[in-house]
Amino acid sequence: MSYARIAELSSHAGQSVTVRGWVTHLRSSGKVAFIVLRDGTGILQAVVVKSQVPAEVWERFGALTQEACVAITGEVRADARAPGGHEMGLAALDVIGASPLDYPIQPKEHGVDYLLDHRHFWLRTPRQVAIARIRSEVEQAINDFFYEHGFLRVDTPILTAAIGERSGLFATEYFDLGNAYLAQTGQLYGEAAAAAFGKIYTFGPTFRAEKSKTRRHLTEFWMIEPEVAFIDSDENMQLQEDMLVFIVRRVLDRKQAELKELEREVAKLEAAASAPYPRIDYTDAVATLQKKGSAVTWGDDLGAEDETLLVEDYSTPVFVKNYPKEAKAFYMKENPADPRTVLCNDCLAPEGFGEIIGGSQREDDLEKILRRIREEKLPEDAYDWYLALRKYGTFPHSGYGLGLERTVAWICGTQHIRECIAFPRMMHRLRP
Amino acid sequence: MSYARIAELSSHAGQSVTVRGWVTHLRSSGKVAFIVLRDGTGILQAVVVKSQVPAEVWERFGALTQEACVAITGEVRADARAPGGHEMGLAALDVIGASPLDYPIQPKEHGVDYLLDHRHFWLRTPRQVAIARIRSEVEQAINDFFYEHGFLRVDTPILTAAIGERSGLFATEYFDLGNAYLAQTGQLYGEAAAAAFGKIYTFGPTFRAEKSKTRRHLTEFWMIEPEVAFIDSDENMQLQEDMLVFIVRRVLDRKQAELKELEREVAKLEAAASAPYPRIDYTDAVATLQKKGSAVTWGDDLGAEDETLLVEDYSTPVFVKNYPKEAKAFYMKENPADPRTVLCNDCLAPEGFGEIIGGSQREDDLEKILRRIREEKLPEDAYDWYLALRKYGTFPHSGYGLGLERTVAWICGTQHIRECIAFPRMMHRLRP
Repeated sequence: MSYARIAELSSHAGQSVTVRGWVTHLRSSGKVAFIVLRDGTGILQAVVVKSQVPAEVWERFGALTQEACVAITGEVRADARAPGGHEMGLAALDVIGASPLDYPIQPKEHGVDYLLDHRHFWLRTPRQVAIARIRSEVEQAINDFFYEHGFLRVDTPILTAAIGERSGLFATEYFDLGNAYLAQTGQLYGEAAAAAFGKIYTFGPTFRAEKSKTRRHLTEFWMIEPEVAFIDSDENMQLQEDMLVFIVRRVLDRKQAELKELEREVAKLEAAASAPYPRIDYTDAVATLQKKGSAVTWGDDLGAEDETLLVEDYSTPVFVKNYPKEAKAFYMKENPADPRTVLCNDCLAPEGFGEIIGGSQREDDLEKILRRIREEKLPEDAYDWYLALRKYGTFPHSGYGLGLERTVAWICGTQHIRECIAFPRMMHRLRP
Repeated sequence: MSYARIAELSSHAGQSVTVRGWVTHLRSSGKVAFIVLRDGTGILQAVVVKSQVPAEVWERFGALTQEACVAITGEVRADARAPGGHEMGLAALDVIGASPLDYPIQPKEHGVDYLLDHRHFWLRTPRQVAIARIRSEVEQAINDFFYEHGFLRVDTPILTAAIGERSGLFATEYFDLGNAYLAQTGQLYGEAAAAAFGKIYTFGPTFRAEKSKTRRHLTEFWMIEPEVAFIDSDENMQLQEDMLVFIVRRVLDRKQAELKELEREVAKLEAAASAPYPRIDYTDAVATLQKKGSAVTWGDDLGAEDETLLVEDYSTPVFVKNYPKEAKAFYMKENPADPRTVLCNDCLAPEGFGEIIGGSQREDDLEKILRRIREEKLPEDAYDWYLALRKYGTFPHSGYGLGLERTVAWICGTQHIRECIAFPRMMHRLRP
């Protein structure tokens, strides 16, 4: 018996094979019946002709239910109309695991809380499969991009010592050492690694214990954080642009079927696959927003509504650069051309999908960064090793953090990032 | 001014370029001097001839210290004797960041605790750079292997709800939902994902709050956990073997310089790059060990010493399969040929580097897995969604967990896994 996965059937046309999977649809005219099977790699329709199969096979067909796990055997026929391009003429049918009639996900509308409660089954539905495949493709594209550009992947720690009384930290008792805190970023470690290895990136989960219930927040989400020695803020934006173009092109090249399943407007993604992306100075952005009627004033960070207003004139992602110092973190480098601002950028996805990247040149002047740490009343000792990077052979360097779920949400065209990770964690959700 | 990274110098031979990096060695005859520079991508020696450079350049050279950050400009000359194959004839030298004379890592022996306290600087030394490069290569190889074999990458949650009073769990307060626990494995989620996507793997950090101080334990370590629908225990071992051969070959192909830096015996790695690996039944392994003088008796799990004794007759990794039920986890499938045992395997690295993989076919019979959960007094409710995978359309499936740091330690030939991750976390170490 030759087993095949559905995605591989094109190399089995004309052959008899066995495919194992789960039943998603059943229908019968009384003489001819159809089973639609999914095995995670694809969808296959099998045709059962009553007069051509043994009576017990027809009986087994009659007892099938949604999500029963079965093995079906028969000849694979190319059929352009069939989902996946192939059909099977069923000759044998064996039930591997029956499925009671009360399978939780029925072909009807369920509320999102119910679906999240049954996320382990919800994941099996076509839209969720498409999102998961695009996420996986984006992840491989990111790894490939950095690998091909000579970056070292560095895994920075999740369990970290206190670096000050910051809000939004998950804490856990750590043996005799007091509390450990779950990392909100790997950046500080990334900076140390950039001095050791030149060009690095991290790829891991990060945590925010925030009581935030927006469609753009998770308590556990994945970030990719490159950090590069000897590049400045402009080169940092160039790197972001090159990476995003690479990712979007990869998805367009290899995930058309999934984009179609998601009814994504592909033309809009294609626009984002072309550089250059505009780079707007924060001060100019505020002026533009005010003209458009926003109440934003110089010094404010930009809110989600302002971001949407600003990108509506563009089809690509948009960089907004050099924000006021007060709106941004202590480690960002003072802008020599305007010391009220720092050399940083946000990258806003088009179509109102909001911020997907935050980046900056890092402050490499020991005195200036010490002043910022004191101004913000952060505990100087906790940063001793980080400050030592400035004391001994300080170096210009820049980096950024890409939010994986937000990027996948934009590419998939979905507003809720909770669908862009297999088992989302939110303020009210820790299971399954 | 044209900037170059040291790793790219072969495309600049004969040209004048500027290289930025940190000083690792300095020596001078009074008329001719040498600077060895590292920039994370490689090592470059620059020659300074007093009579050929301006007086202020020679003076700047005289004031250089270890780990000062500098930009050096000059012609790149191919030189087979030079580290990296190139040398620079220095024409200009600028100091970017000076380094005080008390740089913590001096060219002498430091104790390992001291080095771990200064891990941010220790990472810059040649041996640590070589290990980090091999780790990064292994990670990309793993991603490439699964991508090329049609696996979906699935990121399973770190924050998980209680699944019973198990030891070794880090706990954190999770809003109004009681405690969340840091995942020790992504496997249970991986099983749900395998039913949705067919073939999946996870790639992330896992946590053990164990008071263990061996050279083989970290409290935070990275695991890769594939899970595949419709494969049995034998096919599962085949997948492990294919993956390990792929990883070892990749490192041999692309990381010879790093293996040399580590003084790794390459011939021993080459042996591990050839399949097949032996598959020894646990019962036979116990008999062999007893002949070799071990006190092990049937029913025991194998300890580190037994593992070393067992693999000494082989040059490849070794599978030990079908352990007694009592020695293994509740989710492993009962062996139909001998119900005292389960369909599982450990994979032991050669040369005494110990277990790097644990795998098994999963119990897919609802009644049998329920019985095991009750025998082990695990809370049935907490497993409701996991059990539902067996209730609705249960399916045969198998998977395994590869310990990343242990695998890197074996490939690098280092006994201590603490050097195989950038910032190791151990019972007494949470910083830097």
